[in-house]
Amino acid sequence: MDQSKKGPRRTGATRRIYMSLREQIESGVYGTGDKLPSSRSLAEEHGVSRTTVTAAFDQLISEGYVEVRQGAKPIVATTASPSRLHPSASTANGARRLSNYAMRAMRLPSHSTAGRKPLKFDFRYGDIAAADFPKQVWKHALTSAFMIHRDRLGYDNPAGSPILRQALQGYLWRARGIRCNPSQIVIVNGSQQALDLCARTLVNPGDSVVIEEPCYAMARNVMLAVGASPVPVACDHDGMDTAGLPDLGQVALAYVTPSHQFPLGGVLSVGRRHRLIEWAKAGNIYVIEDDYDGEYRYDVSPIPPLYLSGQDQVIYVGTVSKTLSPTLRLGYMVLPAPLIDPFIHCKQLADRHSSTYEQEALASLIEAGAYERHVRKMRRSSAARRSIFLRTMTDAFEKEIEIVGTSAGLHVVVWFNRLRAEDEERIAGLAGSNDIGIYPISRLFGTPTDPRAGFIFGYASMDVKSIAEGVSRLAGIIRPLVG
Amino acid sequence: MDQSKKGPRRTGATRRIYMSLREQIESGVYGTGDKLPSSRSLAEEHGVSRTTVTAAFDQLISEGYVEVRQGAKPIVATTASPSRLHPSASTANGARRLSNYAMRAMRLPSHSTAGRKPLKFDFRYGDIAAADFPKQVWKHALTSAFMIHRDRLGYDNPAGSPILRQALQGYLWRARGIRCNPSQIVIVNGSQQALDLCARTLVNPGDSVVIEEPCYAMARNVMLAVGASPVPVACDHDGMDTAGLPDLGQVALAYVTPSHQFPLGGVLSVGRRHRLIEWAKAGNIYVIEDDYDGEYRYDVSPIPPLYLSGQDQVIYVGTVSKTLSPTLRLGYMVLPAPLIDPFIHCKQLADRHSSTYEQEALASLIEAGAYERHVRKMRRSSAARRSIFLRTMTDAFEKEIEIVGTSAGLHVVVWFNRLRAEDEERIAGLAGSNDIGIYPISRLFGTPTDPRAGFIFGYASMDVKSIAEGVSRLAGIIRPLVG
Repeated sequence: MDQSKKGPRRTGATRRIYMSLREQIESGVYGTGDKLPSSRSLAEEHGVSRTTVTAAFDQLISEGYVEVRQGAKPIVATTASPSRLHPSASTANGARRLSNYAMRAMRLPSHSTAGRKPLKFDFRYGDIAAADFPKQVWKHALTSAFMIHRDRLGYDNPAGSPILRQALQGYLWRARGIRCNPSQIVIVNGSQQALDLCARTLVNPGDSVVIEEPCYAMARNVMLAVGASPVPVACDHDGMDTAGLPDLGQVALAYVTPSHQFPLGGVLSVGRRHRLIEWAKAGNIYVIEDDYDGEYRYDVSPIPPLYLSGQDQVIYVGTVSKTLSPTLRLGYMVLPAPLIDPFIHCKQLADRHSSTYEQEALASLIEAGAYERHVRKMRRSSAARRSIFLRTMTDAFEKEIEIVGTSAGLHVVVWFNRLRAEDEERIAGLAGSNDIGIYPISRLFGTPTDPRAGFIFGYASMDVKSIAEGVSRLAGIIRPLVG
Repeated sequence: MDQSKKGPRRTGATRRIYMSLREQIESGVYGTGDKLPSSRSLAEEHGVSRTTVTAAFDQLISEGYVEVRQGAKPIVATTASPSRLHPSASTANGARRLSNYAMRAMRLPSHSTAGRKPLKFDFRYGDIAAADFPKQVWKHALTSAFMIHRDRLGYDNPAGSPILRQALQGYLWRARGIRCNPSQIVIVNGSQQALDLCARTLVNPGDSVVIEEPCYAMARNVMLAVGASPVPVACDHDGMDTAGLPDLGQVALAYVTPSHQFPLGGVLSVGRRHRLIEWAKAGNIYVIEDDYDGEYRYDVSPIPPLYLSGQDQVIYVGTVSKTLSPTLRLGYMVLPAPLIDPFIHCKQLADRHSSTYEQEALASLIEAGAYERHVRKMRRSSAARRSIFLRTMTDAFEKEIEIVGTSAGLHVVVWFNRLRAEDEERIAGLAGSNDIGIYPISRLFGTPTDPRAGFIFGYASMDVKSIAEGVSRLAGIIRPLVG
């Protein structure tokens, strides 16, 4: 992030504390893993409230300079050591500096779970149960893909397999009401590559990109890495509050999750959809619609994609990560006509094309109707998981909690009315040491506004029995804290 | 490419003609598909030699402004229309401009073969015969991958599957003499993604990147797209002539194909290896070693990778595109220690990780010894193809040709002593209309130096009978031209 742009939005004292700590980290006064002064002592030192100090820390945490673990004092993050921030200054063999892109990327927190201890009751959002993956069906589909005759194997179409794009055209119409031409569809390695291609193709360093507040961290990170300044717009139970959209000025792109805002779970209201599209039209800006879990909805009528409100303005992004598996790395984009060629060019430069056999396996799954049967099955099992989660949570915590974002998707947010936002990390740590994974919502905020502690609960990776047991155990940990 | 930097290296007249044509294309005087004046008429108009005009056209062709088809007059390339060069000026709905990255990418020629008519005798390099792909073995390996137990499916390690990296460590030692730690290995979607990650992670716009002359087009294109200025260094039968390495100055990175220079086929000599590594060390520059076909060698002792000459300086890139299939999109990098974290960060931002099941299938293939058995089989069948190609070409053309780069790989270059370089495209067009695919070498040169016509012949996608028949047919077409 370009802090010189971000900074002025904060109060003077917050900014002063933030800059002072950041400079001390960058210059190596505090090294990786070093403890930083507590917010209490900093508040005293600067003669300000702890909230002011906390806001500075939040910024440093969100930028990857600082980590907070289980109620301990904040420490300098491993991603923030001088050797990462200024590799040219410190690598032993004097190896050349990294690019500006890589230096920005290194300042961001890693989202890899590699090497982390597995937790027995892990409410990590984004994961799905391995038992739900249709192994036999997928193997059969791959076998079909191998049967497609070809004389030679060469680099394939960078836009993706023609048969998959044809199959997706039909699927998008049946499932999401989207009418498009297969030529508008580009196959990518999951929605992450879609976001990265959008950033590379549409954003220059210094441009502003409208994001949601709170926001999916990897979307924000992609924009920060290309040198964009994210402009967060607050979200409520109706999704992004379009009254807060910025002046168009330097805005190059907007990113939204209209069907089920991530993480708060709001569905973007019709009025806001129109307002967002009008705003985008006025500024000639494209809007990324990340429809990451659009297949899942409960007790509500189908939620139409934003794409239907303005298909010249919207880049629609879909994925099989929530229906088949995040490990497959298959996603797709529906592009406005002027963007088709540029995205195909950039995809080819990035990695030629996505894996052919897996593309064709997905095509065969969709054509045979097996994909939609599987999605219906997943929707039923998710509804059952959601139901047991909501019931056991409500039974355990009654009026102590507020659950939001329940109408769609594979996760909800639970606000604990009598726990404080600043204690989230400590509570998550406590839960972790009891084999329960819960995920603080403040991590996804630029500036948290709700004073309550909130956690994101994904329920797609656990069976109903584990969900019930996990909630019960969690209650045993949290109840004493609110008693 | 930043033409303002590239331009001054050319003669004044070449540059004047180049700029004049480019401006007329950019301003729309000549539209997509329009014929440009012939080199003859331009030579007369400007009072210069046709060589001078040809140099200007070569530059315009290499930058994607101009296309030449089968001896016809040069035309404005589809990639060069004003709507592509200045999308903001012309898109009907006034959609916002593309990023600088995308605008540079759009100026490059597309390397997609999508929609091209298949040719019966296609010597396209990079393709391999579909019959060589071990379908049953690969299906069995995928089945093994499905059997690996896991409770949940979540995003995997961005560096790649630990079991694949472990398996590759052993393979690289056995096959290429490379000793590395699995933590240095990052799995990517084919070598193309490796090149793109190198460009993003190590190059800023305006930096110089040393490339080979002639050079693998997609390596050059990746560097141009990130805004680098390629500095071509001439290659001969011993690979890149390191006497021509530039002053270090603004050089950020170098790219070489030391085991089998693409396309000329030279093997980088020991003295040049040392010189290249010393040069890179002096400038703290990394050198990408693209070992794209290092598994294939004939009549020569194993060619050690450059990596062994300087593992702190070399980024080693390998792929299964030439051993299994280019459609799989699986490759790997061996990184110097300071680059491990930056590359993992950037890979995660790009697409989280490569497809897990395909990574694990490759791991199982390597662990079972089946991969190396397959490589040996491929080496034998390639040797047979190469042998029939060399024999039939020599029989057909005798002293009319010089064949280079025969000691390794899956392609050779054939120089036709009595055909002129400027006729390459016309001859390739003539061959194409007779169902034969041959590929002019001038396309891979910044500035061609050999006055003879040269073509790259890949023989990996055809059986021996088709190779013999293809050569015989080609002789029937070319013999009259040199008679």
